[in-house]
Amino acid sequence: MSDSGGATASKYLAISGGVGGAKLALGLARVLAPHQLSIVTNTADDFDHLGLRICPDLDTVMYTLADLNNKEQGWGLEGETWNFLAALRNLGDETWFQLGDRDLATHLTRTAMLNQGLTLSEVTRYLCTKLGVNHQVFPMTDSRVATQVLLKAGGKLSFQHYFVRDRCQPEVVGFRFDNIDAATPSPAFQEVLHDPQLAAVIICPSNPFVSVDPVLSIPGIRNMLRDVAAPVIAVSPIVGGQALKGPTAKMMKELNMPQSAVSVARHYADLLDGFVLDHEDAELRPVVEDMGIATIVTSSVMITLKDRIQLAEDALSFSRTLTRGMSESS
Amino acid sequence: MSDSGGATASKYLAISGGVGGAKLALGLARVLAPHQLSIVTNTADDFDHLGLRICPDLDTVMYTLADLNNKEQGWGLEGETWNFLAALRNLGDETWFQLGDRDLATHLTRTAMLNQGLTLSEVTRYLCTKLGVNHQVFPMTDSRVATQVLLKAGGKLSFQHYFVRDRCQPEVVGFRFDNIDAATPSPAFQEVLHDPQLAAVIICPSNPFVSVDPVLSIPGIRNMLRDVAAPVIAVSPIVGGQALKGPTAKMMKELNMPQSAVSVARHYADLLDGFVLDHEDAELRPVVEDMGIATIVTSSVMITLKDRIQLAEDALSFSRTLTRGMSESS
Repeated sequence: MSDSGGATASKYLAISGGVGGAKLALGLARVLAPHQLSIVTNTADDFDHLGLRICPDLDTVMYTLADLNNKEQGWGLEGETWNFLAALRNLGDETWFQLGDRDLATHLTRTAMLNQGLTLSEVTRYLCTKLGVNHQVFPMTDSRVATQVLLKAGGKLSFQHYFVRDRCQPEVVGFRFDNIDAATPSPAFQEVLHDPQLAAVIICPSNPFVSVDPVLSIPGIRNMLRDVAAPVIAVSPIVGGQALKGPTAKMMKELNMPQSAVSVARHYADLLDGFVLDHEDAELRPVVEDMGIATIVTSSVMITLKDRIQLAEDALSFSRTLTRGMSESS
Repeated sequence: MSDSGGATASKYLAISGGVGGAKLALGLARVLAPHQLSIVTNTADDFDHLGLRICPDLDTVMYTLADLNNKEQGWGLEGETWNFLAALRNLGDETWFQLGDRDLATHLTRTAMLNQGLTLSEVTRYLCTKLGVNHQVFPMTDSRVATQVLLKAGGKLSFQHYFVRDRCQPEVVGFRFDNIDAATPSPAFQEVLHDPQLAAVIICPSNPFVSVDPVLSIPGIRNMLRDVAAPVIAVSPIVGGQALKGPTAKMMKELNMPQSAVSVARHYADLLDGFVLDHEDAELRPVVEDMGIATIVTSSVMITLKDRIQLAEDALSFSRTLTRGMSESS
């Protein structure tokens, strides 16, 4: 019914947020050739800080693929130093956002290039080239979009204030993506969604509410993902009711959803052909399949590089068993 | 004839460029109480680099007075690290201007505050407070002024490109201070020049052409210094025909002036009541005094902190012997 499952369809699109998504993105990058993999990254976390444009998810994906990332913490650079931040503290500035000395070079370069009129896509391509990232990494949009976290206590917080400064402590009731209605998908994002070679879309195990939803909320994207010939699969960021990383499970509780991989599948149900569960959640397969979504069960907790590669291979194999309108479990 | 020489006149204004001037400024700050000393600093060296406003002379004076400066090189911070610059090089940016990790905190803070609409005077006061500089340090103007170096080979270079990137190699034929005609003295600069307590103005041993001339070229300043009741003295930056620091002697040669302290005295002759010569230049006293300028001879080569303090004391004592219209050697 389409060429998405054919021998010539060999391109994959990964949708990623930060640390959790970047793990699978790295696995995919080790399995797929540069021309076979595009990674679109959430930019609703981006913010201006001390005059710098900071793009946490883009940077995490870039640094991870460049093998420059701090393997312990997931974000930031390996061997980073913090002398700038110490001096900044001495000057009385806000220092809740961790700006490493080396990391600053990325932010200054990006900010200077944006101020010269280049788009975030163009800047990202430049940075990737310089950092030695060969696979295509691009922002979801070149428009400014900003996640606002709506609080149970009333009012809202900008995302980084919620996430970093306040360590996700405040209870949330929802999220708003400022300017999303005026945002357009970045050129590379549009291109890959229209590429007849597209074999599958893989939603990485990122936070559905604040990492993936912004991508899906860009006008037209959700419909394009529904209509695209290639199957769409997701890897659950929730295993055994816990988030592998970050506040996903906590948010589910506050949003009155079951803290379960099923909630993730349900969140994407209108898009999904396949869903990847961890062995620990094997008993959830029938519930997900009842939504008309195929499943596989594998090891989805990525500790080592080998885990990342294995999960990438499992997800790719799974996607190759799926054709749209004919979803079935492998 | 004025109260400048009276017992109540106890305030001093130092005019300084970067490293050379900052040495004497430090000596003066060790001898005079905070309310007794104002230091006005050249800002025509300031430039925008990677989106940051960089004020080399202000920073050198601030860091020196805060005892944070690198004692070996004169500029920059002690114990500085260069990881930002290494990462910047990796990203293919220009790295000829040395931006240290700690130093960056100053530039980012300044730039952010300027972008918020604060004046350079306000930002400098804030930075001084945070760095523990108790004496008043302020820019010559809150307007943007930019030194252009006019080249013998034709064309021009912005100052930092000439000074840092090209290490003063190109031959010069003159200097132009862009926007100087529209510049107004900073509020603190105006205030001190109108302060009846002003006891003396001390031109530090800075480069006359690119550090002091911009200050003197702000509309009204040269006349105010001619008309002020307090005596004006200068300390020669040329000793034995050599510049103690920087390209002053080289510039004199290229500008077809004798490479001599006499050229400095002549350069300021319309303003000066007194001129401080080094022992090595004792034989130049009659030539300078023939211009109607009083002189002292002392040790003006500042190696140690003790040297800086001694020269400051000598200059202050000298200034106290002078009253305008009645100049005489001590």
